[in-house]
Amino acid sequence: MHFRRAGAARTIARMQTYLYPDRISLAALDLVERPDPAPGPHDVVLEMRAASINYRDVAIARGDYGAFAAPLVPLSDGAGVVVARGSAVTRFSVGDLVCPVYVPDWIAGSLQEGFARRRLGGPLDGVLAERVRVHEADAVKAPAHLDAVEAATLPIAAVTVWQTLFADDGVRPGDVVAVQGTGGVSLFTVQLARAAGCRVLVVTRSAERHAELERLGADVLDANGDWRARLLALTHGRGVDRFVDVLGDVARLVPLVRVGGTIAIVGFVETTHTTLDLPATIRRGITLRAQSAGSRASFEALVRTLEVTKLRPKIDRVLPFERARDAWPALERGRPFGKVVIAIGGSR
Amino acid sequence: MHFRRAGAARTIARMQTYLYPDRISLAALDLVERPDPAPGPHDVVLEMRAASINYRDVAIARGDYGAFAAPLVPLSDGAGVVVARGSAVTRFSVGDLVCPVYVPDWIAGSLQEGFARRRLGGPLDGVLAERVRVHEADAVKAPAHLDAVEAATLPIAAVTVWQTLFADDGVRPGDVVAVQGTGGVSLFTVQLARAAGCRVLVVTRSAERHAELERLGADVLDANGDWRARLLALTHGRGVDRFVDVLGDVARLVPLVRVGGTIAIVGFVETTHTTLDLPATIRRGITLRAQSAGSRASFEALVRTLEVTKLRPKIDRVLPFERARDAWPALERGRPFGKVVIAIGGSR
Amino acid sequence: MHFRRAGAARTIARMQTYLYPDRISLAALDLVERPDPAPGPHDVVLEMRAASINYRDVAIARGDYGAFAAPLVPLSDGAGVVVARGSAVTRFSVGDLVCPVYVPDWIAGSLQEGFARRRLGGPLDGVLAERVRVHEADAVKAPAHLDAVEAATLPIAAVTVWQTLFADDGVRPGDVVAVQGTGGVSLFTVQLARAAGCRVLVVTRSAERHAELERLGADVLDANGDWRARLLALTHGRGVDRFVDVLGDVARLVPLVRVGGTIAIVGFVETTHTTLDLPATIRRGITLRAQSAGSRASFEALVRTLEVTKLRPKIDRVLPFERARDAWPALERGRPFGKVVIAIGGSR
Amino acid sequence: MHFRRAGAARTIARMQTYLYPDRISLAALDLVERPDPAPGPHDVVLEMRAASINYRDVAIARGDYGAFAAPLVPLSDGAGVVVARGSAVTRFSVGDLVCPVYVPDWIAGSLQEGFARRRLGGPLDGVLAERVRVHEADAVKAPAHLDAVEAATLPIAAVTVWQTLFADDGVRPGDVVAVQGTGGVSLFTVQLARAAGCRVLVVTRSAERHAELERLGADVLDANGDWRARLLALTHGRGVDRFVDVLGDVARLVPLVRVGGTIAIVGFVETTHTTLDLPATIRRGITLRAQSAGSRASFEALVRTLEVTKLRPKIDRVLPFERARDAWPALERGRPFGKVVIAIGGSR
Repeated sequence: MHFRRAGAARTIARMQTYLYPDRISLAALDLVERPDPAPGPHDVVLEMRAASINYRDVAIARGDYGAFAAPLVPLSDGAGVVVARGSAVTRFSVGDLVCPVYVPDWIAGSLQEGFARRRLGGPLDGVLAERVRVHEADAVKAPAHLDAVEAATLPIAAVTVWQTLFADDGVRPGDVVAVQGTGGVSLFTVQLARAAGCRVLVVTRSAERHAELERLGADVLDANGDWRARLLALTHGRGVDRFVDVLGDVARLVPLVRVGGTIAIVGFVETTHTTLDLPATIRRGITLRAQSAGSRASFEALVRTLEVTKLRPKIDRVLPFERARDAWPALERGRPFGKVVIAIGGSR
Repeated sequence: MHFRRAGAARTIARMQTYLYPDRISLAALDLVERPDPAPGPHDVVLEMRAASINYRDVAIARGDYGAFAAPLVPLSDGAGVVVARGSAVTRFSVGDLVCPVYVPDWIAGSLQEGFARRRLGGPLDGVLAERVRVHEADAVKAPAHLDAVEAATLPIAAVTVWQTLFADDGVRPGDVVAVQGTGGVSLFTVQLARAAGCRVLVVTRSAERHAELERLGADVLDANGDWRARLLALTHGRGVDRFVDVLGDVARLVPLVRVGGTIAIVGFVETTHTTLDLPATIRRGITLRAQSAGSRASFEALVRTLEVTKLRPKIDRVLPFERARDAWPALERGRPFGKVVIAIGGSR
Repeated sequence: MHFRRAGAARTIARMQTYLYPDRISLAALDLVERPDPAPGPHDVVLEMRAASINYRDVAIARGDYGAFAAPLVPLSDGAGVVVARGSAVTRFSVGDLVCPVYVPDWIAGSLQEGFARRRLGGPLDGVLAERVRVHEADAVKAPAHLDAVEAATLPIAAVTVWQTLFADDGVRPGDVVAVQGTGGVSLFTVQLARAAGCRVLVVTRSAERHAELERLGADVLDANGDWRARLLALTHGRGVDRFVDVLGDVARLVPLVRVGGTIAIVGFVETTHTTLDLPATIRRGITLRAQSAGSRASFEALVRTLEVTKLRPKIDRVLPFERARDAWPALERGRPFGKVVIAIGGSR
Repeated sequence: MHFRRAGAARTIARMQTYLYPDRISLAALDLVERPDPAPGPHDVVLEMRAASINYRDVAIARGDYGAFAAPLVPLSDGAGVVVARGSAVTRFSVGDLVCPVYVPDWIAGSLQEGFARRRLGGPLDGVLAERVRVHEADAVKAPAHLDAVEAATLPIAAVTVWQTLFADDGVRPGDVVAVQGTGGVSLFTVQLARAAGCRVLVVTRSAERHAELERLGADVLDANGDWRARLLALTHGRGVDRFVDVLGDVARLVPLVRVGGTIAIVGFVETTHTTLDLPATIRRGITLRAQSAGSRASFEALVRTLEVTKLRPKIDRVLPFERARDAWPALERGRPFGKVVIAIGGSR
C-alpha cells in the first residue's frame, strides 16, 4: 500500500511511478521508485489520488499515435491533493484537490500553433505516479462537489466536450446535439449539452444501456435499427444542429445535420478515413470542425458548469494503482459505460 | 362575447379591435368594430386568443416613447390561431397557434439600420384585436406545449432575453447571471439562464417572492440589505459574468461585473440616465450592451428552447378582452410577478 | 437591338428573355418575347444591363446540379436600372443601378434551413432577360463606382467570397489566405483578402498570368512546380490561416493549413469527392467550412467594401445579349481570367 | 554614453536604469546603476534600444492611476535585442529584436480576471533600463521591417488598437471607423483600420495636420466646425460602425454611431465621467466596449499585420536616454503627432 498522508509528505523521500522505461509499449510499462519531486518557486507538488485513461493512451501504447521518447510516465488525466507548494505560488493552497492541465500552453482562446505541442502523457511525463510536480499555471482546481476519482475523468474527455460544444461557435439552448456511443466523451456530451438546454440524441448498439441514457436526459436511437431515418423523423426532416462524431463516420453524417450545422470531429474509433461528397456538403453549408482537447479557460468554465449543475461524471470502473495496467485492455476491449479510472494511494 | 370558432370564420364580416382613434393616450383608447381582414397571397389571418403588455406600451400611452400616428391598434405581443391563409403560404396551416413577430424586418443576425423601424404596436398596428392579418414571414409558430395566454408573453420580453443572453456574445454554461426585479424580463432571464446551465442571482425587494424565485432556480439577493456585498461574496469577489439591467442602474453595476464581463442594458425603469466612471470601466474591461427585442431567428430558437426544456412563462394575471384597459395600470403600478395578459375571444 | 431608354419604359409592352422552355439544357435555351413585367406595390422593375455566368449555371445546364422545373429563365447574377417601382417601395428610386440578390430569403446572419431554397436561376427565374421584376427587399444597390457589367459579376462570386472571408469566423489583418486558379471566385479572393490586410498566395498553372496576379497583390505559386513546399516555406512551415478551395482538393490541403486554421470549401472544379485523413485533421485542429452564396447583409457589406477600396472586378470578356449562349462554353472550357459577362440592351 | 555591444555583454557587470526609488513621482525619478540581470532557464536578457511613453505612465507619475509600490522601473513599452538566453529558451535567438509584452498573463482570448493584474511599468518593473530580463513567454519578436524606435511604440497603443478593432467582435472591410485626435492610439487606429479595408474619419483641431492625416488615408473632420453634422452627412445619416473614443466623450457619440454599432472606450483624455442617455442608447442598440491593452496573440497578429502591410508607426520625437524625463511633459503638454520615444544605448 502506497498511501501517504499529506501531513507526512515531507518526511518521505521516495514515491512510486509507472514508467515506460526505454520504449513505449504496454508490455514494457513498469512500476518503479523515484525520488519525491521538489517544487520550484511557481510549482505545486500533488499527491495523486486518481488517474483516468483515454483512447490516446491506448494509441500511444500501440505506437499508433506518434513517436515519443522514453522514459515516459503515462496518462494525461488525473487529480491530486496539493502537498507542497513553491514560495511564489498564488493559485493554490495545500490541501486543494487539483487537476493538471493536459495541454498546458493553451491558456485561452482558439487553438494556435505552438499551444498544443506540450501535452501530458507524451511528450511530457504524465500523471500515473504517486506524486507529480506541476507549474501552478498548468493546473485547475477540481469542482468542489467531486471526489478525486470523478475529478480525474475531466482533463481530456470533459474539456474536449466543453470546447466542442461551447467554445468558439457554441451550441445554444434549444439546439439538437447528436453523438454515438457510451464512452467518456459521449456521456459528457449528453450531460453537458443537456445542462445547456439542448436536446440530445445518442446512437447506441447497447439496448441494456437505454434506460440509463434516458435517465441522463438523452433520447436514444438504436444503432441496430434505421437510426438515420429515426433521427430525421425526430428533427422533422431538418437534421441535428451539431453531431459530435466519435467514430469517424463524418461523410455519412452530412445528410443528418441541418443546413448550416456542424459536425464536430473528435474521434475515429471505427475508421481513420472518410470520403466527403463535396457538392452535398456545400449544398447544406456544413462545417466540419476537428477538435481535440481544450484550453485552460475551457477547463475552468467546465468546472464552474459542473459546480452550478451538480453534474457528476459517470464512472465505469475503478482499478487499484497496483492493477493500473488493466486499464488499457479495459478501455480498448471492455466497452466501458463511462470512464475507466485508477485509484492512487487508497482513494475511494 | 366576441369569441368565434375557426370554422365559422369566413361568414363573419366584422370584428372588434382596440384603437387609439385620433391620438395616442390611454384615455382615448377605444373598442371599435372593423371589417374582418382578408389575407393577401402570403398572409395569414389570426384569430387572436391573447395579448400581453410591456413597458413600451405604457410609455407609448404616456407619450414617452416617441410620436406615432393615430389611428393605431395597441400592443405588440400576442398569439392567435390561423383561420385563413393566402394561396402562397407555406409556413403555416389553418389551426396553428402563431405569434406575430414584434420587429418583422429583423429576420436574423445582429441588429442593423433598417431592421428596427417597423414594429408592432407602433408605428405598425398591434395585436389587441379579434383578428389580425400578418405576412407569413412575420410570424412564428408557438411552442407546442404552451397555451395561447402563455405564448402571448413571448414576443418582446422572452425574445429580448434570448437575444441578450444567447445571441452574438452569448453566456455559457457555468456563467453567473444577475438581474433585478420580478417582472417579465426578469423572470425570463431566470428561467432561460438556468435552462442554459448558468447560475442566476436575482435582486428583489419582495421578500414574499423569494420562495417562488428559488423554485425557479434563482439565488435571491435582498435589495433591502447590502446585496452588493452579498453578490461579491457569492462570486468570491469576482463579480457576475453578465448583469441584465432592467432598472438603468448601469453605472453602479460596473464593480459587480467580472473583469471582461458584460452589462446588458435592457430597461430603465428607475432612471433614464447613468453616469459612468470611465477609468473604472476601462480598468475592468466591461462591455455595456444596449438591447431591445430580437430577431425572428432568436424567436424561433426561443421556441425550440422552451419546447426542449418544457419551461412555461409565469403569468401574473389574465384580464378579459373587455377590461383590456386595466392592463396599463396593472403593469405600471401593480408590481406584477410575471406577465400581465389579456385573453381574447374567451381563451382560458 | 433591344436597348430601351428608361423614359420610354412604360410604352413598350413586350421584352425579350432567354428561357429553358420545356427542359433544362443548353441546346434547348431559347430567346423569346414576353410581356413586360408590372411591379406589385413592393416591387421594382429592372431594365437589365448585364448578366454574369457561374459554374452553377453550367452545372444546371448539364443536369448536374439538381432538377429544376421548366420553363426557367437562366442565370443568377445581373445588374439593371430601376425603370418602374411599386407604390410602397422605399429602398430604391427610378434610375438606380441595382443587383437582384441570388438567395433572396437569406437576409442576414448565418445560413439556416429555409433561407436557401429560393435561388435565382433555378428554381426561381433568373436574370437573362431585358426586364426583371424583383421585390425591393431582394435587391441591393450596386457600388457607385462600378458600371453595370462590373456590378453584374458580384451576386454569387463576390458575395460568396465576402461571406467566406469575413462573415462568422472571419480572417483578420495579417492572416495568410491561399486560393487556386484565376476564375471569378479566385480573383475576388485575392482582391478582397488583400483589401482586408491579408497576405494572399495564389496557386496557378498559367505562367502568363503571374504578372497580373502580382499586380492585384498576390504572391504566385506555380502549380507546375512543388508549390506545396513553397507554400510551407513562405509561411515558415506554419501553413496558411485560410485556404479557399475552389477545386475540391480539401484532403491534400490539410497539411498546408496552420494548426487551428480553416479550409473554406467553395468549389469542386476538379473532383466531387475527397478522402480526409481524420487523425491528421484532428491533430491540426482544422475546420472545414463548406460555403456557397451569402446573405443580403454580406452583399451590402461587399458593396461598402468595394466603394471604400475602389476595387473593380476583373472581367475576362463581355458577350452581346444575342450571343449569350456562348457564355456557357466560355466558362466551361475557356479558362477565363476573371468573369464572363453578357451585356444586355447595349450596355458598354 | 551607455551604449554597449551585444558581443561584450557578459563582461559588463552593471547597467543603468531609471527608477522611482521610494515613491512614484516624476520628481523622484532617478537614474541608477544596478547589476546586469542574469537569465533563468526560460528567460532572455534584452539590451534595450528604445522605450515609448503612454498616458498611463503620466497618470502613474501623477498618482492618478492607482498606488504601486516603489522601487519601480517606469514605462511599459520598449524594444531590445536578445543578448543572453536561458538554456531552455526556444522562442528567441541571440540578436533578435524583441518587445516585452505589457500584460504578460494575457496570452490569448478575451480579457479574464487574473490576466490583467501583472503589468509592466507598474506593478511590475518596466523597461526604461539598459538591460531587462523577461520570460520568453512574455515577449514577441518585433516586425522584421521596423527599427527598435518604431517597434518600441507597439506594446500598449498599437496592441490596444488591434484588440479594439479586430479581436472579439471585429470590424469588417467597408465599415466606417471614427476616432478623435492625433496621438499614438489615434494614428494606429487610422493606419490599422485603413489596412483592414475600412473608411476612417478623424476628428481633430489641428488644421496643420490635415494633410498628413489624409496621406495616412483618413477623412478629416475639423473639430472647430460642426463635425457631428459632417460625420452624419458623410455616412448618409447612418452614423459610423465603430467610434474609437480616446477622449471620454461617450455619451455624445451615441447619436453618431449606427444602429447596432459600437463605441470603443479606450481613453479619457478630456473627462473621466460621461452621462449616458439610456433610452437613446437602447433605441440604437449601441454596444459600449471598454478596452485597454490586448493579448499576446493580438500582439503577434499585429506584428503579422504590420509585416504584410509594411506600415510604420508615426514617431513624433525621439529623446535620448539621458533626457528620458522630458518624455512625461512632452506627452502631457506637447500635443504629440504620433508617439514619443526614448532611444536607449545610442539606437538611431
